[in-house]
Amino acid sequence: MKPLVSIIMGSTSDLPVMSAAAKFLDDMQIPFEMNALSAHRVPELVVDFAKNLHTRGVKVAIAGAGGAAHLPGIIAALTPLPVIGVPIKSSNSMDGWDSVLSILQMPSGIPVATVALDGAHNAGILAAQILAAGDEELLKKIQLFKNNLAKKVAKANDELKDVAFEYKVS
Amino acid sequence: MKPLVSIIMGSTSDLPVMSAAAKFLDDMQIPFEMNALSAHRVPELVVDFAKNLHTRGVKVAIAGAGGAAHLPGIIAALTPLPVIGVPIKSSNSMDGWDSVLSILQMPSGIPVATVALDGAHNAGILAAQILAAGDEELLKKIQLFKNNLAKKVAKANDELKDVAFEYKVS
Amino acid sequence: MKPLVSIIMGSTSDLPVMSAAAKFLDDMQIPFEMNALSAHRVPELVVDFAKNLHTRGVKVAIAGAGGAAHLPGIIAALTPLPVIGVPIKSSNSMDGWDSVLSILQMPSGIPVATVALDGAHNAGILAAQILAAGDEELLKKIQLFKNNLAKKVAKANDELKDVAFEYKVS
Amino acid sequence: MKPLVSIIMGSTSDLPVMSAAAKFLDDMQIPFEMNALSAHRVPELVVDFAKNLHTRGVKVAIAGAGGAAHLPGIIAALTPLPVIGVPIKSSNSMDGWDSVLSILQMPSGIPVATVALDGAHNAGILAAQILAAGDEELLKKIQLFKNNLAKKVAKANDELKDVAFEYKVS
Amino acid sequence: MKPLVSIIMGSTSDLPVMSAAAKFLDDMQIPFEMNALSAHRVPELVVDFAKNLHTRGVKVAIAGAGGAAHLPGIIAALTPLPVIGVPIKSSNSMDGWDSVLSILQMPSGIPVATVALDGAHNAGILAAQILAAGDEELLKKIQLFKNNLAKKVAKANDELKDVAFEYKVS
Amino acid sequence: MKPLVSIIMGSTSDLPVMSAAAKFLDDMQIPFEMNALSAHRVPELVVDFAKNLHTRGVKVAIAGAGGAAHLPGIIAALTPLPVIGVPIKSSNSMDGWDSVLSILQMPSGIPVATVALDGAHNAGILAAQILAAGDEELLKKIQLFKNNLAKKVAKANDELKDVAFEYKVS
Amino acid sequence: MKPLVSIIMGSTSDLPVMSAAAKFLDDMQIPFEMNALSAHRVPELVVDFAKNLHTRGVKVAIAGAGGAAHLPGIIAALTPLPVIGVPIKSSNSMDGWDSVLSILQMPSGIPVATVALDGAHNAGILAAQILAAGDEELLKKIQLFKNNLAKKVAKANDELKDVAFEYKVS
Amino acid sequence: MKPLVSIIMGSTSDLPVMSAAAKFLDDMQIPFEMNALSAHRVPELVVDFAKNLHTRGVKVAIAGAGGAAHLPGIIAALTPLPVIGVPIKSSNSMDGWDSVLSILQMPSGIPVATVALDGAHNAGILAAQILAAGDEELLKKIQLFKNNLAKKVAKANDELKDVAFEYKVS
Repeated sequence: MKPLVSIIMGSTSDLPVMSAAAKFLDDMQIPFEMNALSAHRVPELVVDFAKNLHTRGVKVAIAGAGGAAHLPGIIAALTPLPVIGVPIKSSNSMDGWDSVLSILQMPSGIPVATVALDGAHNAGILAAQILAAGDEELLKKIQLFKNNLAKKVAKANDELKDVAFEYKVS
Repeated sequence: MKPLVSIIMGSTSDLPVMSAAAKFLDDMQIPFEMNALSAHRVPELVVDFAKNLHTRGVKVAIAGAGGAAHLPGIIAALTPLPVIGVPIKSSNSMDGWDSVLSILQMPSGIPVATVALDGAHNAGILAAQILAAGDEELLKKIQLFKNNLAKKVAKANDELKDVAFEYKVS
Repeated sequence: MKPLVSIIMGSTSDLPVMSAAAKFLDDMQIPFEMNALSAHRVPELVVDFAKNLHTRGVKVAIAGAGGAAHLPGIIAALTPLPVIGVPIKSSNSMDGWDSVLSILQMPSGIPVATVALDGAHNAGILAAQILAAGDEELLKKIQLFKNNLAKKVAKANDELKDVAFEYKVS
Repeated sequence: MKPLVSIIMGSTSDLPVMSAAAKFLDDMQIPFEMNALSAHRVPELVVDFAKNLHTRGVKVAIAGAGGAAHLPGIIAALTPLPVIGVPIKSSNSMDGWDSVLSILQMPSGIPVATVALDGAHNAGILAAQILAAGDEELLKKIQLFKNNLAKKVAKANDELKDVAFEYKVS
Repeated sequence: MKPLVSIIMGSTSDLPVMSAAAKFLDDMQIPFEMNALSAHRVPELVVDFAKNLHTRGVKVAIAGAGGAAHLPGIIAALTPLPVIGVPIKSSNSMDGWDSVLSILQMPSGIPVATVALDGAHNAGILAAQILAAGDEELLKKIQLFKNNLAKKVAKANDELKDVAFEYKVS
Repeated sequence: MKPLVSIIMGSTSDLPVMSAAAKFLDDMQIPFEMNALSAHRVPELVVDFAKNLHTRGVKVAIAGAGGAAHLPGIIAALTPLPVIGVPIKSSNSMDGWDSVLSILQMPSGIPVATVALDGAHNAGILAAQILAAGDEELLKKIQLFKNNLAKKVAKANDELKDVAFEYKVS
Repeated sequence: MKPLVSIIMGSTSDLPVMSAAAKFLDDMQIPFEMNALSAHRVPELVVDFAKNLHTRGVKVAIAGAGGAAHLPGIIAALTPLPVIGVPIKSSNSMDGWDSVLSILQMPSGIPVATVALDGAHNAGILAAQILAAGDEELLKKIQLFKNNLAKKVAKANDELKDVAFEYKVS
Repeated sequence: MKPLVSIIMGSTSDLPVMSAAAKFLDDMQIPFEMNALSAHRVPELVVDFAKNLHTRGVKVAIAGAGGAAHLPGIIAALTPLPVIGVPIKSSNSMDGWDSVLSILQMPSGIPVATVALDGAHNAGILAAQILAAGDEELLKKIQLFKNNLAKKVAKANDELKDVAFEYKVS
């Protein structure tokens, strides 16, 4: 089955963060692929990879990187597809600020849809929402996912009432 | 013609920034609508507005706000559609950091596709890219837009050579 | 006994921080309630909850959240009551800066009384001080609390003199 | 008429910012007083002033200051009343960060209800909300103020539709 | 023996940091005293304490505090003596930025001689240097201390040569 | 008359900021000298200058610089005298943060008494306070200066009452 | 004459900043070239350009860009030559922090020699210093440049003495 | 064999970070030396050391330091050679920001080629690249090193495909 979403990360060490995007896509039964291709260490591979994304049938790219994170921006420069950027708080980053600003502050003409620091789960949701723009079935699945999220919160709140009881004024 | 993109801003004072998104959509001939609805001043209006976006046929929302910018997040909470967030450096913001962090750092489950500070032009492009996920014609238009951008840069570089001549060693 | 203070948090994971507010109110024998209601996951529940706070007899709301913390602001948008905001340094926050700025930098017209990062204990005190604006007995209790705090500090200082003795020049 | 709210600022140069609080209180017909008393230049005056606030019938204090802003915290240390802090971006501040952190990050036991940078208007509203905790009439006035705010936003949005028309796809 | 230096900290929990100042003064045989007096919890005690410092023969004050650190500034407001401020990275601080800015950014007229975050050792040295302005013997001691510091560094560098040998090209 | 205080700045462009220190010393009739000596452009001159400060009878050094501000630290490294550092927000600085951190965060063993950004007036006061540690007459002058400061504030507050009258509830 | 240094900038709008590098190289009679090639708008042009730098005889590259500044990093990824990065505070940047961190925080294996924000003049000097590693004549020129810099500072200091005279105690 | 690169660090405690530079130079068979010489504790030693670097045949200096990191700048002030600066996140630094800004923001005329926080490995590579400006053999070695880096990344990506398989939609 051809992948609709391509997940790319700057290093295999980003896998623990980025797999949350894969997990969500899998839950939604959206076919995807995963690669670890550094914009700085294999730049030409990245260029070829990015240029051919849309010709292979991919509809959305998710790119995650830490530090001076250029991967999402370079892919966005080379594909007409929407690119979702995931800033990663890697061990050598300055508390994540470098990664956030390197991905978010793209120049006019080349957007990257940036999510929260280490927010790969949200990147997966966003990719699904983008695909759902032309897929009514998927939109309903996403609506269902949101409803389930709401139910879980409501249930947790009910349970809180028991836990929190001891603090209440008698 | 029914709007496919809904542009919402926190205040009419955000119009000079946000109109760049409208401009791009207009250039691409994508029908859109614009509203200025504060999440804090008319919260219930915003709730109704957000809940009904997808039932009205809207496919993507673009929301811009400054300071403690809650508008993009609240809309994302209430619609299954993808929401693009535009942080705005308003007069009362702390150099834009408040707006950027209030929009970017959304919790797990509710993504906002954040673009650069005052990056409404890129928000417009991203909205078009999202629509193009299910529209081959539009994808070609975006590719064309990117090619034109590249030509303009190459031309500017050629002109630079003349401007910069005086600095060269003879 | 009807609650005078309503403590709301964005997630049950905020309970360890927020319970410090509950603890203080309990010490002061002020009736309160606690709920965990995410502005992003159950937005409509939050809207209903906030709109009805004052009609149920609640006088002050305390709302805590981490990351892009919209809960205090949304509640403030929907109630005429004073709302105290507690920024929380959750695991996915950018060292708390996102939470602080998302709560503090509210737009003109919709104040949130923000306390220090993870400052739920102070939120409890502030709620009591607000109630004491119309309650002489409670004001005296708060004065007493402050006097006891001062005594504890003075006593700790006396004990320090013994501990610190070894450093002194003989 | 005895003041219910006491507005204090660190310097007379803070008057242009702080007068927004006075303006709101005046609109709500809440009696108030204004003083410019530096915690660093007239510390003993400030101590006396703060200690006697509640004995003079004041119910809420609003304190604004820039730079290393100690005024709100010192007043909070000396009164059992709720103290609202207004960080001010004065000419010698580090873009307001010093003022925000000096007021917000109060230690456990001594809260200051902090509003946004230069947010004196919101400080005035918050003071009114605090007084309304024991005053049904005032609560209604605040509700009315919020309703008017909402109407103004709705009206501005209607006007935006005309202004924004030229951007719409025909 | 009457103390020449008075070390004050905001809380006894600051002792592990602040004792480094005491240690240096002890090494230099400069008599000193230590107190833990919170500007927010025992403000009047602090006022009395600060006002009487110079009449008791104290020549320099060292004040350390974390978070919204007002102690050094309040003491500086009340004494004609030079006050050295030590920002402390306490558990509830925002990575120390709050403490640094609350102490450093004092308004015109009331200086606090600020040292590095948790820099109590340097505060002790600075206090000795201030006393040495009128004490030739002490100035020589400080010069000796600096010479010993230099010798230690030179010796460590010699030892490094052995440690580092394995990295050298043979 | 031999200078007791030596004011050094990194560049003659720092004179508008640094002259505030000179002005205060002049008011207090404390003899001083001024030099503009860059630690980076004339490092050896700075070394000689710093080493000989105390042998020429100087008692305190005030050093101001912007950007990567090394001047105060280098002088502190080479003199046993107390060194006061003035961070300067020069045109090429990052809003002053570079200058503040380069001066404040000195390593253990080599303190620099840092004042607020552009706080040269306070540097002058601090120098006078240091000299006053061994000079009763000067201490009285400083006390007088502080008293006059307090009077000025009290008078400004009285005048504020007139200015502020129009805001008061009739 | 074949260029030894290649100056590249992200946009022609960076020319006012970047021309300072050209000016220095011209003064040193080092042949150079200048191009404005955006890593995001003409990525493939940049790839070809970077790959061929060393085969054309270029010895050092200087790359300047603002915002999410990927140009220096991408060039460094594609050339074995040393790359000097110039962060630029462009109109759409977050006070330059985005540019600084995007250039400085390069991952292990791909260094960029970063200079100060808008520090193109220093980039020119650094390029000359790199060329001088294998060119004794050039090293002497740089030494001479530094000596002249020192003389200028010494002369300015002499002139300061006259300017500053009025501040001195008579 | 005479060293071509001189590695200097502010303290022997910086050795674990700085040895990564030594390791790379050793791999490239470039002779180097290592010293730990604090600009603040042995300033005159540093001055002599820096002045004589180029006369001893050294071609590049690498200087690393933490906190208010003046070592790279002082060496750059005293040598005509290119100086590479390594900011170090030492225990007493403010999350590395002090070190980064103290090294990066050098004034016009005195560049320091700054690498990422704790980026000593990249400093070693940069030193090799500088030497390669006049050494074709070394340039080829660096090219080989980059090719090997790329191969390692490509191989890791292949392995990722196996690891990541379980996430793929079947």
